[in-house]
Amino acid sequence: MNPCFIAIDTGGTKIAGAVLDEAGKSYAEETVFLKGTGGKDAAVLLYGLTRKLLKSAAEQKIEIKAAGVCVPGIAYHQSGEVWAPNIPGWERYPLHRELQEVLGADIPVHIDSDRACSILAETWLGAAKGCSDAIFVAVGTGIGAGIMADGHIIRGHADIAGATGWMALQPPYDRKFDACGCFEYYASGNGIVRTAEEFLSVEKNYNGALKRGKFKAYDVFTAYDKNDPVALKTFDKVIMFWGMALANYVSLFNPEKVIFGGGVFGPAVQFIPRIVKEAEKWAQPIGITQVSIEASKIGPRAGLLGAGRLAMLTTMKEG
Amino acid sequence: MNPCFIAIDTGGTKIAGAVLDEAGKSYAEETVFLKGTGGKDAAVLLYGLTRKLLKSAAEQKIEIKAAGVCVPGIAYHQSGEVWAPNIPGWERYPLHRELQEVLGADIPVHIDSDRACSILAETWLGAAKGCSDAIFVAVGTGIGAGIMADGHIIRGHADIAGATGWMALQPPYDRKFDACGCFEYYASGNGIVRTAEEFLSVEKNYNGALKRGKFKAYDVFTAYDKNDPVALKTFDKVIMFWGMALANYVSLFNPEKVIFGGGVFGPAVQFIPRIVKEAEKWAQPIGITQVSIEASKIGPRAGLLGAGRLAMLTTMKEG
Repeated sequence: MNPCFIAIDTGGTKIAGAVLDEAGKSYAEETVFLKGTGGKDAAVLLYGLTRKLLKSAAEQKIEIKAAGVCVPGIAYHQSGEVWAPNIPGWERYPLHRELQEVLGADIPVHIDSDRACSILAETWLGAAKGCSDAIFVAVGTGIGAGIMADGHIIRGHADIAGATGWMALQPPYDRKFDACGCFEYYASGNGIVRTAEEFLSVEKNYNGALKRGKFKAYDVFTAYDKNDPVALKTFDKVIMFWGMALANYVSLFNPEKVIFGGGVFGPAVQFIPRIVKEAEKWAQPIGITQVSIEASKIGPRAGLLGAGRLAMLTTMKEG
Repeated sequence: MNPCFIAIDTGGTKIAGAVLDEAGKSYAEETVFLKGTGGKDAAVLLYGLTRKLLKSAAEQKIEIKAAGVCVPGIAYHQSGEVWAPNIPGWERYPLHRELQEVLGADIPVHIDSDRACSILAETWLGAAKGCSDAIFVAVGTGIGAGIMADGHIIRGHADIAGATGWMALQPPYDRKFDACGCFEYYASGNGIVRTAEEFLSVEKNYNGALKRGKFKAYDVFTAYDKNDPVALKTFDKVIMFWGMALANYVSLFNPEKVIFGGGVFGPAVQFIPRIVKEAEKWAQPIGITQVSIEASKIGPRAGLLGAGRLAMLTTMKEG
């Protein structure tokens, strides 16, 4: 039997776990719902799920080499604590220490952020398979990036690298960027709504489907499909920002692949050719010819697979 | 005697070399002027200088462990070729293979770009000493960045990472950015002149020291010191772009230090507090509190020291 790894993906509503081998094949799966619990209670659910996976592995005579955990927030590598805004009481929760006690010294625990796990999953089994220099841009409620350079995840001095939603893209500074950053203000899921609202506020004669303050990003996509003039203008602007951001990744990182994912890509996948066209104007001209831009192929299992890959890679490095 | 390293800094007008130990102490120094030569002739001068350094080391009974070379352009790691726009005939010059032949198999050769060598020097002996996550921004005729993340130099998929002069910072796209990128258009040494010229072209009643098309960046600094209204506006705008760029480094890389260097810093060092203030508006708000912004302390020896550090680090990694 191949050596296997425990992979755990922690979300705001549920925790999913699996026993994966080096090819990503699953030998056991477990899910537990948080039902609003947080703090120690949420951690105890995670430890219970871990023990079930261990038991299932033992029954199948599978050796577990390491465990990886994906958290929807920040994994502080120095302290082993995690911050997850969607799980109450996980501000600086000592998840690494506690889970290491559950698993014992023979099974090392590795924890990383959802953005890191996403690019680990994509470079392992997804649209950036085999790449050493690749970026995953998650466009959802907010915008974050998982960045791999020369095979290493970029975590930063204090584990908060990849905060690409804060990119400065349109001067001068406006106080409206205070809460989330300029790029995210215009180009996240909520940003699509804000951008549409800005156009609505100056469109005197608009009589379409979008009513101020009453719609979501999904509605702007629907209106776009029906050639709604505000939706058309909105995506012209949002695509410009996505293209500028892409150009900046290309110029700074010279990546082989940039993967757009998250809930917005989804429906925004249709815009990838226009995003690339915008980026071609701005980016370092050689770098832009060397990069391929793709939509994420992995979907909701990215966190789980990335957690497995995290465990695997660290073991390979150490052994 | 401590083990030592050959360090070579290749410039457009001269090649400098040294024998350095692990503390950066120099045991031999050589310089040769290119006098307009290029191609194989320039390489032969470099090999002659290398042999002199080897001889000097042998006379002092110094063991050479490795050699590092800094090139003012791109070092292609896969092919071992270098591209240096200021040295004629070095488009894809096979410097690695040839220098490795000169030195023999026992002294491994490592070549890197000036931007990579700059951040290696700064994190070794300069303003970012001891940092694993730091960025060197070289603002001169153009703008480039040397980026270290978690102790690794970011080179990119095809060795052209750090092309920060191409950062998209002010939409919509303008054809005037075609030759050098948006950030560099406004904020390099030549960019300071271009920004001043743009203000001059709309200042009907200007009667100051700056005449259109007849001045250099240095003159804009001089005029600024005398409260020239166009120079004041120029630096307001250029500082805004430097601050936006700094914010983007902070949000993407979460660095411990960002070092401003190159000919423009120099006189622009006085603006660092204003650059930081601008970046504070835009950047990820935790990351900006975790970074320190400084002027380069190393100056013209950065390439040489960085080349030495390059040789040293690669040896440490391998051995």
